[in-house]
Amino acid sequence: MSEAAFEHRFRVALHDADAAGVLFFAHLFRHAHDAYEAWMAWLGFPLDTMLRHGELRLPLVHAEADYRRPLHHGAAVIVELTPAAVGERSFTLDYRFQTADGGLAATARTVHAAIDTHGRRSLPPQLRQALEKWGRYI
Amino acid sequence: MSEAAFEHRFRVALHDADAAGVLFFAHLFRHAHDAYEAWMAWLGFPLDTMLRHGELRLPLVHAEADYRRPLHHGAAVIVELTPAAVGERSFTLDYRFQTADGGLAATARTVHAAIDTHGRRSLPPQLRQALEKWGRYI
Amino acid sequence: MSEAAFEHRFRVALHDADAAGVLFFAHLFRHAHDAYEAWMAWLGFPLDTMLRHGELRLPLVHAEADYRRPLHHGAAVIVELTPAAVGERSFTLDYRFQTADGGLAATARTVHAAIDTHGRRSLPPQLRQALEKWGRYI
Amino acid sequence: MSEAAFEHRFRVALHDADAAGVLFFAHLFRHAHDAYEAWMAWLGFPLDTMLRHGELRLPLVHAEADYRRPLHHGAAVIVELTPAAVGERSFTLDYRFQTADGGLAATARTVHAAIDTHGRRSLPPQLRQALEKWGRYI
Repeated sequence: MSEAAFEHRFRVALHDADAAGVLFFAHLFRHAHDAYEAWMAWLGFPLDTMLRHGELRLPLVHAEADYRRPLHHGAAVIVELTPAAVGERSFTLDYRFQTADGGLAATARTVHAAIDTHGRRSLPPQLRQALEKWGRYI
Repeated sequence: MSEAAFEHRFRVALHDADAAGVLFFAHLFRHAHDAYEAWMAWLGFPLDTMLRHGELRLPLVHAEADYRRPLHHGAAVIVELTPAAVGERSFTLDYRFQTADGGLAATARTVHAAIDTHGRRSLPPQLRQALEKWGRYI
Repeated sequence: MSEAAFEHRFRVALHDADAAGVLFFAHLFRHAHDAYEAWMAWLGFPLDTMLRHGELRLPLVHAEADYRRPLHHGAAVIVELTPAAVGERSFTLDYRFQTADGGLAATARTVHAAIDTHGRRSLPPQLRQALEKWGRYI
Repeated sequence: MSEAAFEHRFRVALHDADAAGVLFFAHLFRHAHDAYEAWMAWLGFPLDTMLRHGELRLPLVHAEADYRRPLHHGAAVIVELTPAAVGERSFTLDYRFQTADGGLAATARTVHAAIDTHGRRSLPPQLRQALEKWGRYI
């Protein structure tokens, strides 16, 4: 595991699994977003507060995932989140989904753009610094 | 089928089914709400417009369901929605989930209360009339 | 809080909230089931193992919830699960959803029936004992 | 619209929208999969039958999406599905999410690998032909 990764854990629930008994692919993104939301709160930028204040939103403009091994119902999963790139008006996050045995089950990436009521905008300096600080360790 | 029922159809999708191969119980409520949303739009009270205007909201204060037979992945389902009761400040809806062979797989009920930014309020007269008009046929 | 309650915690995620900014009612049942799944694993009856072995399933035959206060995006929630009744071939669970300030936001109830490949069956004695042991403290 | 596209329609439901009032990004993949499931049934390869027979599964090994415009609660959306590539043991599907005004809100891509109980396998000839037949028109 990278030193700079933020860890988020979950267990594949009955409702996460589909009729084939494995994590439905779209739910991987839901869990990635849970990791992202927990990480943003940890950094001091809780999404719920930001949404309520309405000054800054960070919608996804891209998402992707590669599935290597099925994640079965009941599997304990560690999501490792790391910032992959920080731009002037967007940032990119990488996710690794690992099982308890250390196996890599999936990877994912999300790209977030900063917007406000006027359209695209720059990332706030404090958020940019927080993201870059994580980036330093990668 | 009752004359007064509003029909909404869906097929049990891969993501609706859980690891046991049958509709996850909580997703029944999601489909009930899809029926409700389609019906409200049909009545002339689309939820999205009401939410955007912000004058009236109809949050659920109660929900329940009885599950009689499993709904398997791929099953074609007809949801029949009927108003069960219309009060001054709330209304109750009943749902029957039937399969193509006419079998009754589940029933559900939701109770909706009218609120605005000041708290509980009366149902708008037009909505009340629309609900009662359906009720007449039951 | 009851002495006999099993606690499960979650935070209302962005995807839990609907366009009105509050927990979508059907997702309350998903969180109730997460509490149930964690509790069953704690009792020694993990659902995933039971499903794979295929000898016993405990599908829901009834579910209901009462919603008292909206649960907003970001809210920290404690689910308290207690067995309400244990029968020969079914059992009933109660859930209380409390916010960090001690307020009761919602209650829910689920009824589970024991089945195997031959149809309805008795609860295994060990599970029945585990359920009754919790019941004793209520 | 391409001649060869398979069309699937949906409306952004209350539960599809997040606290920001727009389609939660992961739910786009759920709708893409609904389009895929409807298309496979149309082609004569219903996923539920294939899963029950257990001879062939087509799990996703990759998924990605680009989000251009928010899809608001209530929006009517047309998903256009087209096969982008057909290989010996996998195939790639493209999705375009268009709103009623003809605007392109998002695109997505999924890659599916053929497996059976022994591991990776070739696509069945009939499925391969059905996929290529659509490909011809692109």
